[in-house]
Amino acid sequence: MSDTLELNKKKEKASQWFQSLQNDICAAFEHIETTHGSNARFVKTPWDREDTQSEQNSESVLKGGGEMRLMKGDVFEKVGVNFSKVHGTFSPEFATKIPGADKSEGAFWASGISLVAHMMNPYVPAVHMNTRMICTSKCWFGGGADLTPTFENDSDTQSFHAHLKGACDAHDPKYYDEYKAWCDRYFFLPHRNETRGVGGIFYDYLDTDWDKNFAFTQDVGRAFLAAFIEIVERHVAHPWDESDKHKQQLKRGRYVEFNLLYDRGTQFGLKTGGNTEAILMSMPPIAKWD
Amino acid sequence: MSDTLELNKKKEKASQWFQSLQNDICAAFEHIETTHGSNARFVKTPWDREDTQSEQNSESVLKGGGEMRLMKGDVFEKVGVNFSKVHGTFSPEFATKIPGADKSEGAFWASGISLVAHMMNPYVPAVHMNTRMICTSKCWFGGGADLTPTFENDSDTQSFHAHLKGACDAHDPKYYDEYKAWCDRYFFLPHRNETRGVGGIFYDYLDTDWDKNFAFTQDVGRAFLAAFIEIVERHVAHPWDESDKHKQQLKRGRYVEFNLLYDRGTQFGLKTGGNTEAILMSMPPIAKWD
Repeated sequence: MSDTLELNKKKEKASQWFQSLQNDICAAFEHIETTHGSNARFVKTPWDREDTQSEQNSESVLKGGGEMRLMKGDVFEKVGVNFSKVHGTFSPEFATKIPGADKSEGAFWASGISLVAHMMNPYVPAVHMNTRMICTSKCWFGGGADLTPTFENDSDTQSFHAHLKGACDAHDPKYYDEYKAWCDRYFFLPHRNETRGVGGIFYDYLDTDWDKNFAFTQDVGRAFLAAFIEIVERHVAHPWDESDKHKQQLKRGRYVEFNLLYDRGTQFGLKTGGNTEAILMSMPPIAKWD
Repeated sequence: MSDTLELNKKKEKASQWFQSLQNDICAAFEHIETTHGSNARFVKTPWDREDTQSEQNSESVLKGGGEMRLMKGDVFEKVGVNFSKVHGTFSPEFATKIPGADKSEGAFWASGISLVAHMMNPYVPAVHMNTRMICTSKCWFGGGADLTPTFENDSDTQSFHAHLKGACDAHDPKYYDEYKAWCDRYFFLPHRNETRGVGGIFYDYLDTDWDKNFAFTQDVGRAFLAAFIEIVERHVAHPWDESDKHKQQLKRGRYVEFNLLYDRGTQFGLKTGGNTEAILMSMPPIAKWD
């Protein structure tokens, strides 16, 4: 089989996985709504672009599409689960920041799933998960998951990390420590001298062995889902009042600060002319500042 | 008189002006609260830093201080009016972006006033004003004012621009067209393909004649205050409902996006180790995203 054919098969397998994970997660989250007496369902918005010139940098070109799914429920105040499969050309300036993009003359392909959940009950943490495969002249996997509680809780932190450690350890005993540390460095607000939450794992540029890296990426997605369902069920019936909600909304203000000031995915998306609605689906429904 | 002595006198005159403008604006805004039956007053928080190493870039150093003033009233839902007078050293990387900082080896001095008002009544526009004097090996004035209505209104747009045009025309017939266009270019959200509001004026690197440039900067401050008081009084009694408030909060979401993604003052402040509370006082009390 030619290299190109084989690469195309890998791209197809990866993007099919991201789609099937999107389906599984959405079904699980809808099931949670149902068991708590809500009829909330995801609203699906497919999008497809033949050719987009970014407004910010007219030299970037992005084609392809994806599907946004957004649910506003009783348990999930706002949750976005997005799948995308895009390709195009980075601007020369942006290409210098992406591995292998010099040799591809800026050409890239990317597919992934991205999820942010802002919860109704302030005692249920917010969560983020993203995994992706990106190709320039190189191909790699990246992603991770991290938990952002308003009220920190040791059981949640421990069980969330235990699930992710399980996924890591099944593939490489070194992964967890390395990717946990990367997550702590990444999800940090220097201007506040605060972490975004209680961490998780973050990895990128993983291109040691495609099949193994893909299997690991799949396990990260599965581990995230199991971990988060557990945490939701642990707190969904916890009583809360307006003062708790106020604290949650202030915490969400910090979330907004991180995403707009520092998040690489947001910057990547907006600077490559990505779908703004999909990229900013991570924004909380309401945020407050003192 | 030596050049250094003369420069110090100019710095002192400018920073005294920014402080006196802060006083005048706060008194006027408190008066508006009073005439509408509210006892709301500005809370003043002076700050002073001997030496701050920025977390983000340990090579930046910032000393000096200022005074934050924050009022949460019945007319002004949240308004911050900040004065600052700081000096320090830019990191080598940041210095390359600032005129004259190469020759000063990164050393800078800056003083200014910065104001953002988020209004209770959705029919009263949000407003921003900032004027400043900055010195590296060069010295210049910059600033401007712009209006962000939730519900656009021709009378407001016209009267706001007329006041600012008056300030411009008194100094140079070319200023208004140039600075209005600069404002339109600057307060633009490329990822939304939207302007932030209905504009105003924006100017920077103004160093043609210190006395004239200073007089112009003073007039911009005075014109802003007259223009905005007029607009507040025009709409403060306008009836509004929750649906109007919701639209205002969505508009504020865009305001947050602009300030965190693009605003140079925010970037300048956070990257030079500035006072985060003061810089992010511009954030609205509540913002929403769909």
